[in-house]
Amino acid sequence: MELIDGNKIAAEIIAELKADVATLPGRKPCLALVRVGEDPASVSYVTKKQKTSAEIGIESRLIFPPITISQQELFALVDQLNADSGVDGILVQSPLPKHLNELAVFSRIAAHKDVDGFHTLNLGKLAQEDDTGFVACTPAGIMELLQRSGVTLSGKHVVVLGRSLIVGKPAALLAMQRKAWANATVTVCHSQTANLAALTRQADVLIAAIGKPEFVTADMVKPGAIVIDVGVNRVPDATKKSGFRLTGDVHFPSVSPLCAKITPVPGGVGPMTVAMLMKNTVKARRQNSSES
Amino acid sequence: MELIDGNKIAAEIIAELKADVATLPGRKPCLALVRVGEDPASVSYVTKKQKTSAEIGIESRLIFPPITISQQELFALVDQLNADSGVDGILVQSPLPKHLNELAVFSRIAAHKDVDGFHTLNLGKLAQEDDTGFVACTPAGIMELLQRSGVTLSGKHVVVLGRSLIVGKPAALLAMQRKAWANATVTVCHSQTANLAALTRQADVLIAAIGKPEFVTADMVKPGAIVIDVGVNRVPDATKKSGFRLTGDVHFPSVSPLCAKITPVPGGVGPMTVAMLMKNTVKARRQNSSES
Repeated sequence: MELIDGNKIAAEIIAELKADVATLPGRKPCLALVRVGEDPASVSYVTKKQKTSAEIGIESRLIFPPITISQQELFALVDQLNADSGVDGILVQSPLPKHLNELAVFSRIAAHKDVDGFHTLNLGKLAQEDDTGFVACTPAGIMELLQRSGVTLSGKHVVVLGRSLIVGKPAALLAMQRKAWANATVTVCHSQTANLAALTRQADVLIAAIGKPEFVTADMVKPGAIVIDVGVNRVPDATKKSGFRLTGDVHFPSVSPLCAKITPVPGGVGPMTVAMLMKNTVKARRQNSSES
Repeated sequence: MELIDGNKIAAEIIAELKADVATLPGRKPCLALVRVGEDPASVSYVTKKQKTSAEIGIESRLIFPPITISQQELFALVDQLNADSGVDGILVQSPLPKHLNELAVFSRIAAHKDVDGFHTLNLGKLAQEDDTGFVACTPAGIMELLQRSGVTLSGKHVVVLGRSLIVGKPAALLAMQRKAWANATVTVCHSQTANLAALTRQADVLIAAIGKPEFVTADMVKPGAIVIDVGVNRVPDATKKSGFRLTGDVHFPSVSPLCAKITPVPGGVGPMTVAMLMKNTVKARRQNSSES
């Protein structure tokens, strides 16, 4: 069994981006980070994105409206960033407070600045295999992890557990693309799937993104499979100072001995998400400057 | 074995639409049909669409630019129809001559008039399960055929053979939606799939859209399966006056005895496509009038 080291692969991508940004003519890429309120997890995510931006040479602008901001005010803020030719990418940190319609806000971001890849038009481009679009960071990161770990998908059976808009569906659409690195046969399973274990056991590559701690057990995995664990779940653990531990959607102790390769949690898919956000931002800078 | 009668189901839908259109206030729905050149198959398809429009009470406008029309001229024509508030739906008949970029032309059509459902934004809405979008007529027709034949998909394993933008991918995205009538587990197979028969044999519902005559044989189908044959292939046949016969992607003589239900070719999926185009046009009329 080989661990897929997301920290190491993300660091490689970040180093490549830093070298790439150094060659860009004109101003640096600029990423606007919008954080509504002071949710501690959101503060931590956004801080990480600012630090990584700085490391690469991407300018970041933090905008932190109060949690009481209205939908119309947030729209106006996004509109202003859309119109600002000095901003290449816009990220509105999820989750938003419940009084705001997250999907509407994400789709308000101009598609060519939507470095999170959540815009309707970017999802459509993904389905159309139009590479001018932006792919959501987590599924894009999964594909990078696989490629950089020497996994070829062509002809393989990829089983995606979960059909979310942010992971499951885009991961499925990526893996089935007519690309040399893709070309997989793809099955999407979910909460309503009958005989789930019989399906997941067929996976050459199993992508677990169902949001249930340690849901995937040894009986659900074919020996020799490659397992990508997208879950980030907090489970109570009295032995920890924090009172909880992080676990993925895979029961690592029993599943990992079976696998050819597996991602750990933390340190697998997680670090890739920020790296892919940075990659999208640099792409946005390049595409925007070629238009102007 | 039960035949799924596409002609009968399409006629039901057309009758429902006729009754629905009769209740619409204001002007009739209007569908613009753009046919480039005089390709006999295109002439026949467009004529069928005009006749069905008339039957329902949809106004149709035929525009038939010469085969020499340039991309820019065709864009200008589409722009004019986009701007015309008397036009609800726009269909540019496929295939276009090779000097025209079909995908670019389809995406030029305003998304809210894209009754063919090929626009990037409508594909994105399909992925997002946003029902204000338009779904491509063939996959939408497949789902109607299934529902109106009493097939519930929830928990079933749907195997889609083919990953085209027009059939395979949208059919997969529809079948996996979080809808009471959907909720299927979905596998997408294609030309690069290994062990194809082992996968198709798992299908409770098999959707064959691979464009190869009589490709699906009895050994690829589980007894009791429901088979939807999307193929329309011309194969040489000296016994026919035309010199050819139409066949689907399924070898009907050997597969049909195994099935619980199966669509014939012709008379299965084919007639549904026009019915769904009409349904999209009425939907466009209703959505456009609610905006104005």
